[in-house]
Amino acid sequence: MITYEQCQQWDAEDKLADLKSQFDLPEGVIYLDGNSLGAKPKQALACAQDVINQQWGTDLINSWNKAGWWDLPVRLGNKIGKLVGARENETVVTDTTSMNLFKVLAAAIGIQQQQDPQRKVIIAERDSFPTDLYMIQGFMALINQGYQLKLIDHPHALPEYINEQTAVIVLSHINYRTGYLHDMAAINQQAHAHGALLIWDLCHSIGAVPIDLNGSNSDFAIGCTYKYLNGGPGAPAMLWVHSQYQTAFNQPLSGWWGHAKPFDMAVNYTPANNVRRFLCGTQPIVSMSLVECGVNIFLQTDMQAVRQKSLQLTDLLIKLIEQECGGFGLTLITPREHSHRGSHISVRHCHGYEIVQALIAHGVIGDYREPEVIRLGITPLYLSFTDIWQAVQCLKQVLETKQWAQPQFQTRRQVT
Amino acid sequence: MITYEQCQQWDAEDKLADLKSQFDLPEGVIYLDGNSLGAKPKQALACAQDVINQQWGTDLINSWNKAGWWDLPVRLGNKIGKLVGARENETVVTDTTSMNLFKVLAAAIGIQQQQDPQRKVIIAERDSFPTDLYMIQGFMALINQGYQLKLIDHPHALPEYINEQTAVIVLSHINYRTGYLHDMAAINQQAHAHGALLIWDLCHSIGAVPIDLNGSNSDFAIGCTYKYLNGGPGAPAMLWVHSQYQTAFNQPLSGWWGHAKPFDMAVNYTPANNVRRFLCGTQPIVSMSLVECGVNIFLQTDMQAVRQKSLQLTDLLIKLIEQECGGFGLTLITPREHSHRGSHISVRHCHGYEIVQALIAHGVIGDYREPEVIRLGITPLYLSFTDIWQAVQCLKQVLETKQWAQPQFQTRRQVT
Repeated sequence: MITYEQCQQWDAEDKLADLKSQFDLPEGVIYLDGNSLGAKPKQALACAQDVINQQWGTDLINSWNKAGWWDLPVRLGNKIGKLVGARENETVVTDTTSMNLFKVLAAAIGIQQQQDPQRKVIIAERDSFPTDLYMIQGFMALINQGYQLKLIDHPHALPEYINEQTAVIVLSHINYRTGYLHDMAAINQQAHAHGALLIWDLCHSIGAVPIDLNGSNSDFAIGCTYKYLNGGPGAPAMLWVHSQYQTAFNQPLSGWWGHAKPFDMAVNYTPANNVRRFLCGTQPIVSMSLVECGVNIFLQTDMQAVRQKSLQLTDLLIKLIEQECGGFGLTLITPREHSHRGSHISVRHCHGYEIVQALIAHGVIGDYREPEVIRLGITPLYLSFTDIWQAVQCLKQVLETKQWAQPQFQTRRQVT
Repeated sequence: MITYEQCQQWDAEDKLADLKSQFDLPEGVIYLDGNSLGAKPKQALACAQDVINQQWGTDLINSWNKAGWWDLPVRLGNKIGKLVGARENETVVTDTTSMNLFKVLAAAIGIQQQQDPQRKVIIAERDSFPTDLYMIQGFMALINQGYQLKLIDHPHALPEYINEQTAVIVLSHINYRTGYLHDMAAINQQAHAHGALLIWDLCHSIGAVPIDLNGSNSDFAIGCTYKYLNGGPGAPAMLWVHSQYQTAFNQPLSGWWGHAKPFDMAVNYTPANNVRRFLCGTQPIVSMSLVECGVNIFLQTDMQAVRQKSLQLTDLLIKLIEQECGGFGLTLITPREHSHRGSHISVRHCHGYEIVQALIAHGVIGDYREPEVIRLGITPLYLSFTDIWQAVQCLKQVLETKQWAQPQFQTRRQVT
């Protein structure tokens, strides 16, 4: 039986507890949606003020050199690289995750076309975040060269699908809905044993779990900076390419930022001889600059410590849901094994949508995902053990009193 | 003979003069590079503060609805659309100009493949801003279907190149170097007479000259918001598609923001039935929000008034350079005819690079472009007639005293 006092005790022993003071969160809110939009670092406004007033307003175009705007994608990439086991100059921050998937997919397919052109199968999970599938579909339709997308229904089924026809595998390291965590090194090994290349989507794992892209022998990775990394709404995404593949193929979104000598204004594209070739057009400097505020907080600790607290919090959340909310029809869909659990907990309930709305009305902000999934994100930098206690008490109250049945929690948002 | 007093008189009569108070520019600077990075609207910091503190920090993910983040690309697109003769819901703000070129090029080629698949020639100007050529090259290499890029050396040569082989023409409305302005309606007519589609790059014309995309019967347009529109460094770009082509083809950068029902999380991509299908991934909300500050200033006047003052200022600049700086080896490369003149003046000088550096040291910020080009951007919202006078006096001084020969003005920036 876990008690509130026990949670207080864990808070008192929490070595990461002080980091919460570097974030602004509204009074009275327990924020369990940092895996959708990370919380705001307190430093963000001062950073924006410097970029807007000093760099843009005062230094004007001189900021391309003086403030290092030109180098920002690689400088920030290297900082993020420290969190994912990247070597120097293997990582850039640029564009969106979707665009970056297109780039690395084109690069990976291009490499396979040189090495093994009969490979025509791309493998992904049916339960990928949809944009990954959409980008693969758009790419295949555009090049129109007989590629086929095979969707697997369960992560465990992956090994039986990989064979000598497989060109590229696109996988989410952590599933956006269930929180299932793949064993990166093992899957890389399986893929490489059959000559396939692998693209990891790190959107729900970067800043959430330790990642060792080089240690696990990965090929390509993409991911977003506005979830666990707290980079700000829609902040530019990251892209990582193993050194051996950086110059193996030229990606087709070949804008001037990826040119070897962009200021020569040459007529023909010559890709930069490094990871810069994965850049394309001029980047949104204000949004990109803000990425640094969140990453700087991570660099004050390490991902092992973050992971340890994340597992403590997700363990606690699972146990408290079972202890406090048993018998209300909640079904855990996140793996219980630590080795396959990311940093959020998802439970299904036939009134999941309405329950999430009722929780939000009480200041417990989680997220709803089709179908029926209540998704509760765990961000160890700004969540405490008593936060988890209080969130579950709120959930219990919503379920016990059937608050979710109130009309105001029924209206779903329509996007047309 | 034009005098300083005459310039003062013109300033006194200038109906746009008051708009300058809505921009922050450093003391003592005459900013002639607003066509590279537009000046900072005073409103920008307050806007960023609202987005960062209220929308991100306080309202968190609720801002997707409450602050309208999801609709921002179309809402801003419609505001910018008023400056370019767009109908409602033909314009979006998203991604970069380079990416947007890829999208509309793919759409235009896709339409031609349906209508007239033997058309295999893409026409562009050799003197395009290079990223346009690079993106075309990347697209052609990726699809690998026998397309050919024909580069024309002079805008006047365009008509003789257009024929029944022409699939798509990509043109800068105003040339980034010379300031040459194309007759949009006439060229659209020439292209359409031969069955070709046309993509206009508006980077140096949006916010600089009146544009009537529908009135001129245009097909596709892209352009940037951080030059004349003053959207902030690297602010997301615009994309316009004529209503008749919005659903004629699906562009291949098919991310979830372009899906008909993005929150259904469907496995297969179904493009939105409107201009949203040209969206792709989650956008950088802070940088994008700032675009509105600059556009709002334009909406207080109209592009005819902006154009009138722009021509007065460029006329003045040409005349004063001739009057004050004759005999120093400057050669005007911008057309004298108003009908072919954009909103910047470029002069060549064999020491162009050094002269620009010396001018900058005096607070007259222009831009250097290969080869030998001194580029002076004219932004009527925040430049006065006496600004032009003073800039030319500074140029005269630099040339008379050969300040450009000083060692500190010789060092060129190397980008590796």
